[in-house]
Amino acid sequence: MEITSFHPPQRILMGPGPSDISPRVLEAMSRPTIGHLDPEFIRMMDQVKQLLQYAFQTRNDMTFVVSAPGSAGMETAIVNMVEPGDTVIVCVNGVFGGRMQAMVERCGGQPVVVEAPWGRAIEPEKLEAALKAHPEARVVTFVHAETSTGALSDARTLAAIAHQHDCLVIVDAVTSLGGCPLKVDEWELDVVYSGSQKCLSAPPGLAPITFNERAVAHIQNRKTPVQSWFLDVNLVMQYWGGQQRRAYHHTAPINNLYGLHEALVMLKEEGLENAWQRHRENHLRLKTALEAIGLEFFVPEAERIPQLNAVQIPDGVDDAQVRQRLLEEFRLEIGAGLGPMAGKIWRIGLMGYGSNPKNVLYCASALETVLKTFRS
Amino acid sequence: MEITSFHPPQRILMGPGPSDISPRVLEAMSRPTIGHLDPEFIRMMDQVKQLLQYAFQTRNDMTFVVSAPGSAGMETAIVNMVEPGDTVIVCVNGVFGGRMQAMVERCGGQPVVVEAPWGRAIEPEKLEAALKAHPEARVVTFVHAETSTGALSDARTLAAIAHQHDCLVIVDAVTSLGGCPLKVDEWELDVVYSGSQKCLSAPPGLAPITFNERAVAHIQNRKTPVQSWFLDVNLVMQYWGGQQRRAYHHTAPINNLYGLHEALVMLKEEGLENAWQRHRENHLRLKTALEAIGLEFFVPEAERIPQLNAVQIPDGVDDAQVRQRLLEEFRLEIGAGLGPMAGKIWRIGLMGYGSNPKNVLYCASALETVLKTFRS
Repeated sequence: MEITSFHPPQRILMGPGPSDISPRVLEAMSRPTIGHLDPEFIRMMDQVKQLLQYAFQTRNDMTFVVSAPGSAGMETAIVNMVEPGDTVIVCVNGVFGGRMQAMVERCGGQPVVVEAPWGRAIEPEKLEAALKAHPEARVVTFVHAETSTGALSDARTLAAIAHQHDCLVIVDAVTSLGGCPLKVDEWELDVVYSGSQKCLSAPPGLAPITFNERAVAHIQNRKTPVQSWFLDVNLVMQYWGGQQRRAYHHTAPINNLYGLHEALVMLKEEGLENAWQRHRENHLRLKTALEAIGLEFFVPEAERIPQLNAVQIPDGVDDAQVRQRLLEEFRLEIGAGLGPMAGKIWRIGLMGYGSNPKNVLYCASALETVLKTFRS
Repeated sequence: MEITSFHPPQRILMGPGPSDISPRVLEAMSRPTIGHLDPEFIRMMDQVKQLLQYAFQTRNDMTFVVSAPGSAGMETAIVNMVEPGDTVIVCVNGVFGGRMQAMVERCGGQPVVVEAPWGRAIEPEKLEAALKAHPEARVVTFVHAETSTGALSDARTLAAIAHQHDCLVIVDAVTSLGGCPLKVDEWELDVVYSGSQKCLSAPPGLAPITFNERAVAHIQNRKTPVQSWFLDVNLVMQYWGGQQRRAYHHTAPINNLYGLHEALVMLKEEGLENAWQRHRENHLRLKTALEAIGLEFFVPEAERIPQLNAVQIPDGVDDAQVRQRLLEEFRLEIGAGLGPMAGKIWRIGLMGYGSNPKNVLYCASALETVLKTFRS
């Protein structure tokens, strides 16, 4: 059968990402490609860096975009900060903490796992106990907003404890950046990475990342080369570095960066605090609407991520059937549970451009309609 | 200063890539993002796979797209095929062969380098000698079309020699795919990767790749885990795999894949052999036009890549000044020399959508105008 142009169906994206993308950002993606060493493109890269410093709330010079999805941002953080034989304290309260553990192992590190139940924040006391038991550790990793469960950990407190024990922190902010308070400098977070396709509502495929001076010094003091050539920040920063002449490393995903640039300009126009507030308000609207139809949240109130709502699937309700009907009849995508959460929770995203009252009401109303089938 | 929307300047891209992108492909990029686990998106991924099998001239089931640029395609090939301690014969006749060597080293392999002068093809006899001297080697790497010098190596012959010595080949086809004959199955190439932004004229940021059954068996017989989580083909293929239920690995660069899909549909419409022929004809047109203004090619005629023309910079001509004037006055980008070739050659790309008679004449005419300055 002949393959012809692909025209995506209309959707409303309220899963764990990608989120709906503004027409402004989509239009930016379609602007003509220029060379990645063109002076005008380099100027744009410098602006992306400045805008990311704003979004991350940091003055870190080593702030750039990994030319690959959030998981590659995670791998960039870990392969640069961890050497073979290093003890690394890895906090795990969901899929993404587990992925950090796997990556630490693949670069020869020795992970010491601090676990919290899925759906709960990491307990600072447990981290402290692990640090006391492993004084040789120099790196702690944790997920700020665990996308697989909807639980938000206290990044500031975890980082402070790590620092008291002479450790640097690697923070997964894939779902938090742009959606809830994240203050890299004020909270003294050493390495923080994110993804483009969550609360920034930029096209998927890019991973913003930032390293502070302590992290840069840690990398400069490595005894072994970084195992990945593509993700070695020593090389990548010669490409993103703006001060001197730009050194060719790889070809940046130019049109994707157009999209990210536009999304960051929109974030700046709105104001970061206003964006956080909007995500919070729409979360509260969704909470009211879902509770009115008898749905319950999976995560205790104080530990919820406003932009990613994990909701318990009621007894007797067929998970897959509900999501299929939402997609087919309402063109609405919500997220399934991942791993051990499959069939137990739905994940309803109110991220970036998609975090608005219209989506809240539409989602609650569509869910109510579909769920009636199971209650009649 | 306030940062506003970025509007790229008008350019004609005749460097080593990215190449000019068709308006059809740019428009495809701006279609609304849908979920990466959406049944319609999975259908599109399956089509991309089929179209890539056509472009690569292969029936390999393990044909997919790495969600990152060509260099990550290179790293995917190497980290999956090479284990610590393995002897790897690495053919080096330019920057990208050297990059393969660096990657082999970073994953603990022992590279044995087969060198050819920059601007020349790899000599089959030298590869044979290295294989005889290193009977323990099981993998050979080479670059089909060396983008840094414009030299085309004989992939079929090199692969045949490697196979005689019980080795598998990893082939860099970043610049060759879609631009000159490349027949993965007929030539028995085991692992072949490419980039989206050269002769496919798709947006930069994606690396098509294919593994044959021998390569898959080689990976399945590994004694150690692949050092990269993000690039581990065992994991990635569960995402691109199609037969069973798709397993979440990372979030694909959705809009970039829309663009690649459209570019591949266009390649299919034109016909692969017709595309090769078009690249060849425009190369010959450029050759005639450049020789008429006294410019000489860097690579011997029999070893030239038709889509990437390496031209010697005449004595007394200021490289940077010429390229700057072409960019500013003519909006025309041509490529500088990389590494030891800097200041010695220009690299003029006639790739994909940009390989047309209009660009040939425009480039020759603009170069003639600018070069007159230095001759008067």
